[in-house]
Amino acid sequence: MAAPLEIGPGDVADIALGGAFLACGGGGDVIVGRMVAKRALHEHGACRLLPLSELADDATVISIGGVGAPSIMAEKVSNGSEAIAALRMLEEHIGRRADALIAFEAGGSNSLIPLSVGAELGLPVLDADGMGRAFPEMQMETFSIYGVSATPLALCGNEGNRVILEMTSAETAEQLIRHFTVLGGGGVCYSAEHVMRGEVARRVSVGGTITLSLRLGCALRRHRGDLSAYLEAIRPHLDQAGYGAAEVLFEGKVVDVDRRVVSGYDVGTARVESFGDPEDVLLMDIQNEFLTARRDGAVLASVPDLICVLDNDSIQPITQENLGYGQRVTVLGIGAPAILRTERALEVVSPRNFGLDFDFVQMEERLMAL
Amino acid sequence: MAAPLEIGPGDVADIALGGAFLACGGGGDVIVGRMVAKRALHEHGACRLLPLSELADDATVISIGGVGAPSIMAEKVSNGSEAIAALRMLEEHIGRRADALIAFEAGGSNSLIPLSVGAELGLPVLDADGMGRAFPEMQMETFSIYGVSATPLALCGNEGNRVILEMTSAETAEQLIRHFTVLGGGGVCYSAEHVMRGEVARRVSVGGTITLSLRLGCALRRHRGDLSAYLEAIRPHLDQAGYGAAEVLFEGKVVDVDRRVVSGYDVGTARVESFGDPEDVLLMDIQNEFLTARRDGAVLASVPDLICVLDNDSIQPITQENLGYGQRVTVLGIGAPAILRTERALEVVSPRNFGLDFDFVQMEERLMAL
Repeated sequence: MAAPLEIGPGDVADIALGGAFLACGGGGDVIVGRMVAKRALHEHGACRLLPLSELADDATVISIGGVGAPSIMAEKVSNGSEAIAALRMLEEHIGRRADALIAFEAGGSNSLIPLSVGAELGLPVLDADGMGRAFPEMQMETFSIYGVSATPLALCGNEGNRVILEMTSAETAEQLIRHFTVLGGGGVCYSAEHVMRGEVARRVSVGGTITLSLRLGCALRRHRGDLSAYLEAIRPHLDQAGYGAAEVLFEGKVVDVDRRVVSGYDVGTARVESFGDPEDVLLMDIQNEFLTARRDGAVLASVPDLICVLDNDSIQPITQENLGYGQRVTVLGIGAPAILRTERALEVVSPRNFGLDFDFVQMEERLMAL
Repeated sequence: MAAPLEIGPGDVADIALGGAFLACGGGGDVIVGRMVAKRALHEHGACRLLPLSELADDATVISIGGVGAPSIMAEKVSNGSEAIAALRMLEEHIGRRADALIAFEAGGSNSLIPLSVGAELGLPVLDADGMGRAFPEMQMETFSIYGVSATPLALCGNEGNRVILEMTSAETAEQLIRHFTVLGGGGVCYSAEHVMRGEVARRVSVGGTITLSLRLGCALRRHRGDLSAYLEAIRPHLDQAGYGAAEVLFEGKVVDVDRRVVSGYDVGTARVESFGDPEDVLLMDIQNEFLTARRDGAVLASVPDLICVLDNDSIQPITQENLGYGQRVTVLGIGAPAILRTERALEVVSPRNFGLDFDFVQMEERLMAL
């Protein structure tokens, strides 16, 4: 199956569904992003999807998306105008226009925002993103990991609240963005960032992830309720996009979710009891996304590998803000794309970067050792 | 004595000294600002001082200065290049050049920075400022109080850390600036803000305050050690600039200063014991500046009126970060300029705006009632 050249309103539901899967529980509720993107693609026509291989060396690529706590993002509907305002503000500041847009994460609404904006402005969107999943912090984008400066960067929040930011460190930029998100956006704002040339974007992006989202979503729809058929369908697509294995880690009932908003993040832990044995418990750490899956003290999988929680009956993905007591779930582990498992990437996205006290070991190795 | 038309290197020491007096303990240590301004006026020639009355209606006025904890500002010497960078960044953003600069506070280094920059760029500086004293927060500038938007605003911190900010509320802008000051400037940054037309600047500024600083400083130098001669000399100048009475509130020894840096401010209290009677104690609240003078539970003076602490022997002003155990001091109260005592101003700069639990009463009234 060749990569699609255009994304139309009919593709939005599948991309959103596949994006929710890749988002590992994060990236924002897709209901909002789906409505916005569908309407934009209806109104402005299809959005052209550009494979990394077809990107011109000297093209100007800009990354756009929403920033903030997913639980708030789900309640504050945007029509995409803030993302366009951020893009225009950044373009004016740097004195040139974007030739192509790229999502900074593959998850949830943030995989759809560039499509809405691309359709409205007639700009192609790269079939790629900066995470291959969702992560809570900007310096965890592969763009930053592989040396592209996040700034100059433009942010748009509520009303007329806007910022152009130039910071020498992605970490301090991230902190200031979090403050602006709260002060200027009531918890959510829209960002245009990581200006880069085409030749750079090709090297520092996770390729093929919009197409992958579309295929993951399509398979979820077609194999609704049939886990093994679903896994069989998605494994070749994951493999083609450079991801690792896809394995069932646990099945059970959610018995506790401890979650609160801490400096703009959803933070907490979730506890799942096995259907067969209530003593058999899976613990998941949360920081916007599911970070870990631990069973009886043994880590089964951890960031940067993907941990996806599906409804046990429908096998549809559940975002972490929608996870709650009594839900029957299937927890999947997906090996992260190779670009996230390098030594350089693991300096930024290993468990220790999330305050966890162990090193990253690939899920495939961990499962083999059990 | 007519207002001077030019400020040369020989005027810097007096303006700095008078500015330190008006700063009520805040505004930053003048040693740094004095060196910078003297050098700039030597290197680039005198700076033209423009009375508000001579400002063209359609002139573009921009306010510039340093932001942050005075205790840190005193240790981080700037050559003025950050303030110029902030000004240029803002000019580029709004698409026009400043015709005149204005200090946003009359105190300490911040009354000198516009003079350095004005000399270097060949721009006149208004004989005026936005506080008539020093205050810890931007929304306390008369520009903001009387309706001029603080933003668009440009900030320059360390290295390449820079921000252009547009916020609908001066309070949230202030909070974001404080965050940037810490994250992007290590505690201090330089700001260009409050773009306004000449006709507006005339209406919302505290006029004559650079000339006043010069005269206060000149008198401090000439009457060094002679408090009554000093008070006699400065009263007509204060009166001419629209300030209230100038009275000695207390004389004694500093026995305790409790001071810490809290979210970018110097915050605390100082305790002074009377020379004659150790039971007779003056308490002063501090937030960058001295906010109150209270004796035996009775408030003698409070913001927005000015509380100035002088060395008891030399009668030279002491900045709050230099106030310490054992110092012998004279505490003066100066009635704030009329523009700070209006109902509108008191919504922003009354004791309650600083977390104190009483209303503003003019110092003259308070002293009369004792």
